[in-house]
Amino acid sequence: MKMGEGVEWALHSCVNMSWAPVGEAVSSARLAEFYKLPASYLNKQLQALVRAGILSSVSGPGGGFQLARKAEKISVLDVVLAIEGTKVAFRCEGILKNGPGGNMDEDYARTCLISQTMRHAELAWRTELSQQSVAGIARSIERRFPEAKGNTVNQLMGSRR
Amino acid sequence: MKMGEGVEWALHSCVNMSWAPVGEAVSSARLAEFYKLPASYLNKQLQALVRAGILSSVSGPGGGFQLARKAEKISVLDVVLAIEGTKVAFRCEGILKNGPGGNMDEDYARTCLISQTMRHAELAWRTELSQQSVAGIARSIERRFPEAKGNTVNQLMGSRR
Repeated sequence: MKMGEGVEWALHSCVNMSWAPVGEAVSSARLAEFYKLPASYLNKQLQALVRAGILSSVSGPGGGFQLARKAEKISVLDVVLAIEGTKVAFRCEGILKNGPGGNMDEDYARTCLISQTMRHAELAWRTELSQQSVAGIARSIERRFPEAKGNTVNQLMGSRR
Repeated sequence: MKMGEGVEWALHSCVNMSWAPVGEAVSSARLAEFYKLPASYLNKQLQALVRAGILSSVSGPGGGFQLARKAEKISVLDVVLAIEGTKVAFRCEGILKNGPGGNMDEDYARTCLISQTMRHAELAWRTELSQQSVAGIARSIERRFPEAKGNTVNQLMGSRR
């Protein structure tokens, strides 16, 4: 089971956008250039974040992307689900239905303990990711790499300032 | 992100094998027939469980597969990692290395909070799965579906008894 690298790109891009001056959009070309990412593929991730209501896109000169709500209100889980889809990773096919004594009408995804165990584990995973916000990550980066925020804003917004 | 259905098949098959009389192997054809699964694909999962030391395979007449250790000692996590691989789902590519001020020698998988957050979430997922054993699932099925164990043994071992 592997998560796409788009999750890593999207999370870092959200952190970077959280540092942009309020109301100013960042071009996807600049965001891609920042970490030397393939622009078209990053753009695809950013569009997924727009569809999930995490980013808004601004067209025209000075256009690009910006956070659609405060970074405190965007959890890591929000970003992960926007990129990877909201479905759980373990999808119970209810194979007990095909077994001896299986009941076609029973919802084994609810009653089968294998399915429940897998679901509880995914809930634990989601809970962890929901407790960390883009703002929290940004703050911890500011503490650890004090020059990061300034450098990022300069590079992303440079020519406009 | 999607887990293969092989996980569901492997877990149910392990539970069924935990009910087989001690020392008796179950043929993969019987295991496949039990839930009407494609035999060659189920066999592939069973071979993966052998490689992971969860099952042992017995050749010759009366051959097949059996649990390689007590069902109490086989966690759901053991089975999931045997089928899906032991690598974590989020694989940090360290894109901070390519950013301004990035340090090619730094292990960002350790120092980047995004990477840490993703790792902690996967640890929570793994912890949940490690706390449930094949034996625990078997017991809960016996409680809920009292006829399951007997039916399973009859169908899997039938002609030999």
